[in-house]
Amino acid sequence: MINLGVDERLDDLNIKGYHIIQNKEKFCFGMDAVLLSEFVKVKKGEKVLDLGTGTGIIPILLEAKTEGKHFSALEIQDESVRMAKRSVAYNHLEDKIDIIKGDIKEAGEIFGRASFEVVTTNPPYISDRHGLKNPDMPKAIARHEIFCTLEDVIRESAKVLKFRGRFYMVHRPSRLTEIIGTMRKHDLEPKRLRMVHSFVDKEATMVLIEGIRGGKSFLKVDKPLIIYENVGIYTREVREIYL
Amino acid sequence: MINLGVDERLDDLNIKGYHIIQNKEKFCFGMDAVLLSEFVKVKKGEKVLDLGTGTGIIPILLEAKTEGKHFSALEIQDESVRMAKRSVAYNHLEDKIDIIKGDIKEAGEIFGRASFEVVTTNPPYISDRHGLKNPDMPKAIARHEIFCTLEDVIRESAKVLKFRGRFYMVHRPSRLTEIIGTMRKHDLEPKRLRMVHSFVDKEATMVLIEGIRGGKSFLKVDKPLIIYENVGIYTREVREIYL
Repeated sequence: MINLGVDERLDDLNIKGYHIIQNKEKFCFGMDAVLLSEFVKVKKGEKVLDLGTGTGIIPILLEAKTEGKHFSALEIQDESVRMAKRSVAYNHLEDKIDIIKGDIKEAGEIFGRASFEVVTTNPPYISDRHGLKNPDMPKAIARHEIFCTLEDVIRESAKVLKFRGRFYMVHRPSRLTEIIGTMRKHDLEPKRLRMVHSFVDKEATMVLIEGIRGGKSFLKVDKPLIIYENVGIYTREVREIYL
Repeated sequence: MINLGVDERLDDLNIKGYHIIQNKEKFCFGMDAVLLSEFVKVKKGEKVLDLGTGTGIIPILLEAKTEGKHFSALEIQDESVRMAKRSVAYNHLEDKIDIIKGDIKEAGEIFGRASFEVVTTNPPYISDRHGLKNPDMPKAIARHEIFCTLEDVIRESAKVLKFRGRFYMVHRPSRLTEIIGTMRKHDLEPKRLRMVHSFVDKEATMVLIEGIRGGKSFLKVDKPLIIYENVGIYTREVREIYL
């Protein structure tokens, strides 16, 4: 049994019987996080850090899908931290997943240099803070670069990654040149890219990127990830991810 | 009537009755050039430069497809220059297209700074010269960075482009991070990207990129360009390009 707060609900993740607590008014994970967790490769015995984990969806899915040894997850918002910890406990994953309250800008100090084989992140996408009426609202913090910028995320990821460690991020295509430039500045060489399109004949709405710390310049562009076959009907690939 | 040399043939371009002379042993244009000419936008009255024009395929197709005012084309190989000039003459395009013999590394000096609204290029893709048995062969020169590097092409393009002028290139995805980094170094901001995949479920084999001199950072990733629907059967989009 679990006590759910106002607006909270318990969602079945359809994998290993795992569930996650979400608050439909404040923190719900998106398809972005699910597609990222599918794009990420974690090998047996590796240690993984998720930066800005929100509900904890990424470490929970990665624990289910991979043979990683341990998953750390950093989150700045108290309420998200508490909710993510409750989800971890509900799934009896306290030995595998640590939810840590803290600031991405200090990840290097919190975890120490060269501590992880893999870093994952689904950071705020929007750099423009103009017109934000409530910049202290949980959704605004998750979506806009209020507490951290793209460069903060990439710089700290590079710090905590081991040499040859892998960085995985989902972001907006509009910022891809900035992403690639900033990754290279911090010696995270982009090695694999996958564009996500709602339909095969529409522009990309998300980009999945993998970088390697200290890697050589050679990029692979995967087949496009198409979400819908027809209006309201997922493609087989997406249906298989959600099974 | 036209005199064709040994191994030469006259190919119908299926547009405006234009033809092109090709030499099947030395210089044949690829689908790369055709897809690039479809990706390029030339507005009425604009002046265009094609760097490393080979057979002259790109300016000839752009003259047919757009309302550009004039097309200049630079090529270093004597034999290609002569062949491209003969194709221009055969199509009676001497007033619209100039084929100029010269070195891409000197394009800024040859044409002068800020001289064009549009630059197009289908440069050599391969940076690795190791193992080249005949680096003086026409095909090797067209494919490997023997006479010019990626940075030469981008640097000279930036020189000859007007402020807000547009740069269009086709290249290999494996070099995309280097392309983006070098473009930004020379103030050609990548604005539009299109991945080319043989099949919808295969990795990208080519990338089409548009940059704007002095542009702000904001990238659009177009729908993927898929070449084959099934083995041996082009997709409708490619069939329409080749009609």
